[in-house]
Amino acid sequence: MREDVERMLREQQQRLCERLERVDGAARFGRDAWQRAGGGGGLTRVLEGGRVFERAGVNHSTVFGDAPDSLRPLLSTVAGGGAASGQFFVTSLSTVIHPRNPMVPTIHANYRYFEVVPEVGATSWWFAGGTDLTPSYLFAQDAREFHDFHRRICDAFDPAWYPRFKQSCDDYFFLPHRGEHRGIGGIFFDRLDDRAPRELFDFVTRCAAGIGECYLPIVERRREQPFADAQRAWQLLRRGRYVEFNLMYDRGTTFGLRTNGRVESILMSLPPLAGWSYAVQAAQDSAEAALQEVLRTPRDWASAAGEAEGDAR
Amino acid sequence: MREDVERMLREQQQRLCERLERVDGAARFGRDAWQRAGGGGGLTRVLEGGRVFERAGVNHSTVFGDAPDSLRPLLSTVAGGGAASGQFFVTSLSTVIHPRNPMVPTIHANYRYFEVVPEVGATSWWFAGGTDLTPSYLFAQDAREFHDFHRRICDAFDPAWYPRFKQSCDDYFFLPHRGEHRGIGGIFFDRLDDRAPRELFDFVTRCAAGIGECYLPIVERRREQPFADAQRAWQLLRRGRYVEFNLMYDRGTTFGLRTNGRVESILMSLPPLAGWSYAVQAAQDSAEAALQEVLRTPRDWASAAGEAEGDAR
Repeated sequence: MREDVERMLREQQQRLCERLERVDGAARFGRDAWQRAGGGGGLTRVLEGGRVFERAGVNHSTVFGDAPDSLRPLLSTVAGGGAASGQFFVTSLSTVIHPRNPMVPTIHANYRYFEVVPEVGATSWWFAGGTDLTPSYLFAQDAREFHDFHRRICDAFDPAWYPRFKQSCDDYFFLPHRGEHRGIGGIFFDRLDDRAPRELFDFVTRCAAGIGECYLPIVERRREQPFADAQRAWQLLRRGRYVEFNLMYDRGTTFGLRTNGRVESILMSLPPLAGWSYAVQAAQDSAEAALQEVLRTPRDWASAAGEAEGDAR
Repeated sequence: MREDVERMLREQQQRLCERLERVDGAARFGRDAWQRAGGGGGLTRVLEGGRVFERAGVNHSTVFGDAPDSLRPLLSTVAGGGAASGQFFVTSLSTVIHPRNPMVPTIHANYRYFEVVPEVGATSWWFAGGTDLTPSYLFAQDAREFHDFHRRICDAFDPAWYPRFKQSCDDYFFLPHRGEHRGIGGIFFDRLDDRAPRELFDFVTRCAAGIGECYLPIVERRREQPFADAQRAWQLLRRGRYVEFNLMYDRGTTFGLRTNGRVESILMSLPPLAGWSYAVQAAQDSAEAALQEVLRTPRDWASAAGEAEGDAR
């Protein structure tokens, strides 16, 4: 399973970078291969200063070895409180795309396979991940298509998954000090292990392949939409909130930075440019106020099961 | 003492805003008075989009009342482990100035007076604060003058203070994940209570009055210095590090945001615009590399006691 997931995520990384480069038409992804002293390494791919994408990161990594101190609590949990040491393995694909045009949303996706092997006791494994959308301006069509897309993927495996993963996504991407969610959500799941590994592998493969499929139609629809300086300024403020979430609350970021993770790979999630301004108030009934409203109160975007028309592609 | 410190900090707030407005010549400070439900309030003053200052915040607040849960450990410490409840009082002046020109450094200063009154036992009081400088480009003259200025203030009270407070400043403003200090330091002290209150009041008054005195000569010297787009881009990247420090490590910010502090007043410290780029490498022997060098290895900027020529004003 380790090799299968790793190969699949690498293939998806390569495919996604190719598709994004085609859509951008100007900038290319770099290739930065790195090794981890304790075991494993990764390939960080970042595109900057594109025509469509201002910054995009698509990172793959596989790291393993002796479980560091930071994993001790997890190790102890999975081993039923017994083990004080052991091995870990994680292979993951992590993507954040910050487009230039404020009408195009930012997308984030992360899929990973985890194994913990306590010195005494049985190996634990699970899948985790999700994909979520962060618009600066709300387009209901985009939000509905994005959620319908993920509902359909989930429904093919278990109709209970989409509502659960959608809720987890809303719960996770929340900035308490702003009383706002980071974006309009998507799906998010942690420690998914209650099916046959092969079935979950198929699900995660479908999700990872879906990153480009769900996002690029939205990009194509919005990329040439005209925008004013004030809308660019609003996008920069929204990106400021994105920075606040990632540096203060995102578990992957804070955990990674505090445990000697590879800083540049972790922080590729941050926007190329972000802004802050004092006590900004969106004008009543403005597009900016409409976005804030859905960030404060997440909406059910997906059609009821069976209602969605056709396929998102 | 409560009233004296509050009055002094308010006066310094008013004076500093007036001086900054005169230097800027274009933008003015707003006035945002606010009340705190549990007791106290403040006056937040922010200037944005100026000719010289891209964003400047000069906040005063006085908050008091029942000690919130977040202050329990402190309460218990000062009361010798006994008290579980009590009152607190804090009055403070907090300033962050982000200039437009990358050759002008960012300055941060915060001075405050704290009282904790446990239900049982004696009241504890102390002063805390400091002033520090964060340049995007290093000018040794500015760094020396800034440190000499603070060394002279400290020396007039205790020759042991400057070396101690300088070290505390270097220790505090450090980003572990970057292996870098936030800026070139200054002074920083916490829980200063080992002198007569009146003497410490005089010291803090001198420090607070010094914010404009130490900073504005540097502003005047650098504000018209020409700069290229690449130097503006470097400034934005340096501001990105500033954001990382404030959101991840600054105790005032993280404590304030996690305990229902006034978000807009706390986050006025963030720059109006900040940037991130992948794996930026400063060219060898460049001005950017010179800055990084002193951020990685703090330098002793002040003249030895008695060596400084004249007064900084």
